[in-house]
Amino acid sequence: MPQNARESAVPMLMVTRITAMRFTRNAPMLAMGKCFSAMLYAGQGSIRYTRSLTRIPVRTSSRSYEVLVERGLLRSASALLRELVPSHAKAFLVSSPPILRLWGTSLTESFSDAGVSLEVLEMTDGETSKRLSAVEKLAGKMVSLGADRRSVVIAFGGGVVGDVAGFLASIFMRGIPVIQIPTTLVAQVDSAIGGKTGVNLVSGKNLMGTFHQPLAVLADPEVLSTLPDREYRSGLFEAMKYGVIRNPQIFDLMETHREALLRRDGELLERLIVECVQVKADVVSADEREGGERRILNFGHTIGHALESATKYKHFLHGEAVGWGMVAATLIGEGLKITDPGAAQRIIAMVLAYGSLPVVQVDGKRILTLLQSDKKTMGGVPHFILPTAIGKVDVVNTVSGRAVIEAAEEISQLSKAR
Amino acid sequence: MPQNARESAVPMLMVTRITAMRFTRNAPMLAMGKCFSAMLYAGQGSIRYTRSLTRIPVRTSSRSYEVLVERGLLRSASALLRELVPSHAKAFLVSSPPILRLWGTSLTESFSDAGVSLEVLEMTDGETSKRLSAVEKLAGKMVSLGADRRSVVIAFGGGVVGDVAGFLASIFMRGIPVIQIPTTLVAQVDSAIGGKTGVNLVSGKNLMGTFHQPLAVLADPEVLSTLPDREYRSGLFEAMKYGVIRNPQIFDLMETHREALLRRDGELLERLIVECVQVKADVVSADEREGGERRILNFGHTIGHALESATKYKHFLHGEAVGWGMVAATLIGEGLKITDPGAAQRIIAMVLAYGSLPVVQVDGKRILTLLQSDKKTMGGVPHFILPTAIGKVDVVNTVSGRAVIEAAEEISQLSKAR
Repeated sequence: MPQNARESAVPMLMVTRITAMRFTRNAPMLAMGKCFSAMLYAGQGSIRYTRSLTRIPVRTSSRSYEVLVERGLLRSASALLRELVPSHAKAFLVSSPPILRLWGTSLTESFSDAGVSLEVLEMTDGETSKRLSAVEKLAGKMVSLGADRRSVVIAFGGGVVGDVAGFLASIFMRGIPVIQIPTTLVAQVDSAIGGKTGVNLVSGKNLMGTFHQPLAVLADPEVLSTLPDREYRSGLFEAMKYGVIRNPQIFDLMETHREALLRRDGELLERLIVECVQVKADVVSADEREGGERRILNFGHTIGHALESATKYKHFLHGEAVGWGMVAATLIGEGLKITDPGAAQRIIAMVLAYGSLPVVQVDGKRILTLLQSDKKTMGGVPHFILPTAIGKVDVVNTVSGRAVIEAAEEISQLSKAR
Repeated sequence: MPQNARESAVPMLMVTRITAMRFTRNAPMLAMGKCFSAMLYAGQGSIRYTRSLTRIPVRTSSRSYEVLVERGLLRSASALLRELVPSHAKAFLVSSPPILRLWGTSLTESFSDAGVSLEVLEMTDGETSKRLSAVEKLAGKMVSLGADRRSVVIAFGGGVVGDVAGFLASIFMRGIPVIQIPTTLVAQVDSAIGGKTGVNLVSGKNLMGTFHQPLAVLADPEVLSTLPDREYRSGLFEAMKYGVIRNPQIFDLMETHREALLRRDGELLERLIVECVQVKADVVSADEREGGERRILNFGHTIGHALESATKYKHFLHGEAVGWGMVAATLIGEGLKITDPGAAQRIIAMVLAYGSLPVVQVDGKRILTLLQSDKKTMGGVPHFILPTAIGKVDVVNTVSGRAVIEAAEEISQLSKAR
């Protein structure tokens, strides 16, 4: 068994797993139960996963759908795909060459087993590809391959592919469905869920986009096995965020099982993903358009975005910037006596323990200036999401410029001391 | 008085006019009543219009709003604008140089009176400007001028400006509001209402777009006074369409008052616009996304689009192609014994009476091929909207290829015989 004694001491997670069954589109979605049912290992050999599927419902005014999590799901998705893609509809898989090389066959075989007609469209990954011109090129290819209003887009990749392909689907012939199949940890626990799509302008990130909820999100934790280490760690900071803003059990899990998670232990990783998805699904279901509760997802992102922007998105991966952003927000919260000191210590220690984070060489004043031009800055007042305890945050709009500058200087020093 | 005896014999229209009052955003929308209230002329001099506003509600699941029609509305819109644009929000007016030259001052003065901060963004009019690159350019300008999520786009122009600016608003920072202020007859009675936005791909028209309902539509019939004659006539064919699909009174009005409408009699034109808007508003309210009833708006458009496409959008104005499309659909309907012969005769005579329509030099077989690649062709079967009587249409998907070819040849001959 892969679990050691310490790991089995982790508190029971709020998850129900059900055995794989034919997925029927109109079946009522299962509520999440309270126990983590026993797993059936096929043996001590290579097939370790349990062939059971976790379904997490997302309910928004524009669409209700499920996030489906299972190790090996890419290869075993044919029944799901058959139900999700209407018969006679063509599917257009948008992906990047590296993902296709590593995982393309697994997924395309599932499409083939499902009897769904599939066309593969390649796009270059990376922020520089998140442009309207990429969307236009993909749309042109779709038309030439006979796409119509009943076609379905499959977004198969990380955050960039998900954002671009989701946006493409949302505007192609005024909107066709998209299925998100995320292949990075950040995308599986965050960006593929909730319907945000977008591309960049020269003047800023994600300045053009839509809300376009997917038909479904299929997350296979096994694809994370080929993720570069730095990208994987970057995703862990987003996972940590869910612990701080909503679910202390995620935080505990990550505190207790740091080493196993860093070596990508399959079972723990799947549990972590399921828990994180549950938080994201709950928040999005309560607030599709970020008018209220959805803003708590921006914990660590206010200063995180400023760090990314100041370094032209070249120095930090998104999750890394969020890592430093969480430390800075926690320091600000502590200074304002909003954050419990014990909690603050745990949050900062955890971020540093999961490092290695890049050095912060951005001036505090520069960060403040950038905050004031952030698109989330409604009328000039930057909102901060500050932790009160592990699992609880407040939205605060009374943070002074001086507090921002001080926190920024402090993370800069912390980053250099390591 | 501008009306002659014949004109006063027009049946009472289904419209309520209310005197201008402060427009409050949350006021319950007024239901349309059954009588056309007495108009108060300021005298026999130049000020002929009545300073009263017609409000026509549009109710969709995504937004409820009003279409406001009044001669002189551009200049008298300050109270409306003050209520529609949130305080501290910046407005970004997208328009074309000719419209700004002719009507820009009237509108910008209303903004100035309303105390709303306004930036003017120019775009080139015409189908070749309906591209993602134009949208990207406008968005970049907005960012550089300080646009944020609370900004509002004002679309001030014909169909192209409305489609591009509406699309821009729908994707800028994942969606900000748009107010449509249409300046062509086609846009006032059709394209500015109902939330369809879009741009072209090289491979086809409106292949990328969104549904984005406006905050309000402001239609001032006076701006039509500077419309080139051909464009004005083109709009009259869209008006005629509403008569055939839903409201025989529109048809009667256009039959009875051809000359006065062609010389753009202010009062008759306003009545015509109000009636047409009412039909469009009703249809869109019943079916926002064209799943069912909204399809009836495509009467004349099936073959119309094929004519435009075959001539690369250079030979026909949209309404002109729809004019021929309505004749073709009527001929098909008559052949299938779906259209009452008396009604068919009236429809065809009316289209020809409002000519002058360009000659049709497109081969019938070419039209059939194009129909089969139309984006409205769900799975290869072209749907036709065929009149049964004046004011009533059926959706028919059993039209044979031979019937299409014959109708196309017939309109070609009709066009050359004139």
